[in-house]
Amino acid sequence: MAHVGSKCRVCKAPAVIDLPRHNAHFCAEHLQQLCRRQMVKAIGDFDMLSPDDRVLVAVSGGKDSLAVWDLLIEAGYDADGLYVGLGIGEYSDESGRVAQRFADDRGLHLVTVDLRSDYGYDVPTAATATGRVPCSACGLSKRRLFDRAAVEGGYDVVVTGHNLDDEAAVLFGNTLRWDVDYLARQMPVLPAANGFPKKVKPLVRLTERETAAWCLVRGIDYLVEECPIAAGNKHLGYKEALNSIEATSPGSKAAFYHGFLDRMAPLLEGMSGASAGELARCEQCGEPTTGTVCAFCRLVETAAAHDPVPVEMVLPKRRRR
Amino acid sequence: MAHVGSKCRVCKAPAVIDLPRHNAHFCAEHLQQLCRRQMVKAIGDFDMLSPDDRVLVAVSGGKDSLAVWDLLIEAGYDADGLYVGLGIGEYSDESGRVAQRFADDRGLHLVTVDLRSDYGYDVPTAATATGRVPCSACGLSKRRLFDRAAVEGGYDVVVTGHNLDDEAAVLFGNTLRWDVDYLARQMPVLPAANGFPKKVKPLVRLTERETAAWCLVRGIDYLVEECPIAAGNKHLGYKEALNSIEATSPGSKAAFYHGFLDRMAPLLEGMSGASAGELARCEQCGEPTTGTVCAFCRLVETAAAHDPVPVEMVLPKRRRR
Repeated sequence: MAHVGSKCRVCKAPAVIDLPRHNAHFCAEHLQQLCRRQMVKAIGDFDMLSPDDRVLVAVSGGKDSLAVWDLLIEAGYDADGLYVGLGIGEYSDESGRVAQRFADDRGLHLVTVDLRSDYGYDVPTAATATGRVPCSACGLSKRRLFDRAAVEGGYDVVVTGHNLDDEAAVLFGNTLRWDVDYLARQMPVLPAANGFPKKVKPLVRLTERETAAWCLVRGIDYLVEECPIAAGNKHLGYKEALNSIEATSPGSKAAFYHGFLDRMAPLLEGMSGASAGELARCEQCGEPTTGTVCAFCRLVETAAAHDPVPVEMVLPKRRRR
Repeated sequence: MAHVGSKCRVCKAPAVIDLPRHNAHFCAEHLQQLCRRQMVKAIGDFDMLSPDDRVLVAVSGGKDSLAVWDLLIEAGYDADGLYVGLGIGEYSDESGRVAQRFADDRGLHLVTVDLRSDYGYDVPTAATATGRVPCSACGLSKRRLFDRAAVEGGYDVVVTGHNLDDEAAVLFGNTLRWDVDYLARQMPVLPAANGFPKKVKPLVRLTERETAAWCLVRGIDYLVEECPIAAGNKHLGYKEALNSIEATSPGSKAAFYHGFLDRMAPLLEGMSGASAGELARCEQCGEPTTGTVCAFCRLVETAAAHDPVPVEMVLPKRRRR
C-alpha cells in the first residue's frame, strides 16, 4: 500500500501504508498507534464509552467490525460480539465462520442470532416479500436485533464498526436531499432513549483503508468480499463520488464529516422529530414504536409467511450469471 | 440529444432533446417553452426583476450568458450586455467576437471593458503575479467590473448566466467544507447593499444541457470551448461528482440545490458575516471594502506592475504541448 522505499513518518522504518490525508507514510507499529489514537479521540470527544461499560459489538465478519472489536479488547474494554446470520447465501455462511473463528482464536464471546432459524425468514426472502431493496429489510433487522440483544443481555452500549467513509457517505446522501430530520440525528453517538440502548461508532475518525490496514498488520482474517446484493446501491454511489473528490483533494472527506459535526450539527440540535415525545409500545413485541405494531414485527410477519427465496434471485442484474 | 423516434411530451412531434430529470422528451418549441417557464418561475420565486428594471447582463460569449440575455430580451426586459476582456489568449479573442456578433445581429447594446487596455493587466499575468490560481484573479476582476459598470451606468440589477449545474457545484463545494458563512449567502439573489448593485441568477432552474439546447434551437452561435486555464479546477471536480450521482438518480442535482434553498437556507438566515455592519470605503477607488485598500485595487497594483505573461504559461500541465 506504500511506495517502495518510503519511510514511516515517526520512526523512519520502512512504511507499510501511505495516507495522503495525513500526507505521510507509516510502518506497521505506528499505523497501529494512529488507529488507537483516533479511536481514543473519537470515544473521548463524544463520550462514547466508560471504562466499566459492558459493550456489545455488532460483528459482520468484515474488516471494520473485527477491527473495532480488536481495538476495544486491546484497550481493555469488556466487549462481547453479536453476529446476525442474514441468510445471504455463501456470503453469510462464510462471514459467520470468519466471525466465529475470530472470537474462538481470542477466547471472546460471540452471541449469534440467525434470521432463518430464529425468526423464520432471511434477507433475500424479506426483500422479495416486501418488494423493497434488500438493504432496507437488512438494516431494519440488524438494528432491531442489536437493540434487543443489548437490552436482554444487560449491555450498556452497542458498538458498530461504521468508519469515516460510511458516515461521510450517509451524510452526503442526507445532504443531497437536505433531509433536516436525518441530518439532525447524524451523530456518532445515539444516547439511550425510549427503551433503545445507547449506540456508538468509535471508528468515525478512521477510513476503510485504515481499518483494512489495521486488520492486515494485526493478522486479522476478515471477509474481504462485500455483500453481493448491496452492489450498485445508492450508498456505494455516494462513496464513489466522495472518493473522486478525495483523490484530488486528500482530506476533504474527513473535513466534510467532521466539519458537519463541528459547525452544522450544533445548528440543527433538537430538529429531529424522533427526539420529540414519548413512543408507544408495539402490541406484539412490546418494544418502542411510533405505531401500534412495530416495523420489525410487520417485517417478520410478511417475510416469514413467504416461501424462501434463494440469494441468486435478488442479485443486482449485472451480478447474475 | 434525443433517441431516434422519441416524441415531445407535449405535442408528440419528433423530439430534439430528452431530459431524464423531467422523465420526458421535448420538441424545439416545447423545449423553449420549458426554458421560458423555468426562468419566469425563478424570477418570480425570488423577486429577481421588475418589468421596468434596467438590466445589465454579464456576457462571456458562452451558452449560459447568451441564453439568459436572449431569454430576457424575448421576455421584454430592457437588457444591455457587459463583456470583460480577460486576456486569456485566443479563447478571449474568440469569446469577444462571439459576444459582439450576438449583440450586433440583434441590435443590442454591448458595453465592453478590457483588462489589459483599461487596467494594464490580464488574467494570466494576474495569476502569475499573485501566485494564486487564475480563477481567483478572474473572479475578483469580473465581480468588481460588473459592479462598477452597473453603478456607473445606472443599471438596477446585474444578471449572470449561472445555471443549476454551476450553483449546485458551488453549493457542493461550500457544503463539503460546511462553510456556514458562504452557505448563508448561497442565494440566487444578492440584494443591493453597501454600494454594491443587486445581482440575480435567472437560470438557476435550468441545467447547462438545457441552456445549450436553448442556444441550439434558437440558432445562437456561442463559444463551445471552456476556459483553457480553468481545466482541472475544483469546481469542475464538484460538477463531475454531482453528474455521476445525477446519472444514477435523475433529478438529484435539482433536489440538492432547491432542497437547500427551501429547507436549509431559512435556518442559516442572518449567519453570513458579510451581512453584518457597514463597510469602509477603499482609499484608492472609493468602493466598499472591509479593509483600507480593496482587494481589486491591490490586484490591479500587483498585476499591472508585472511583465505580461502569455496564456501558455498558466495552462494546467496536461494542457501544455
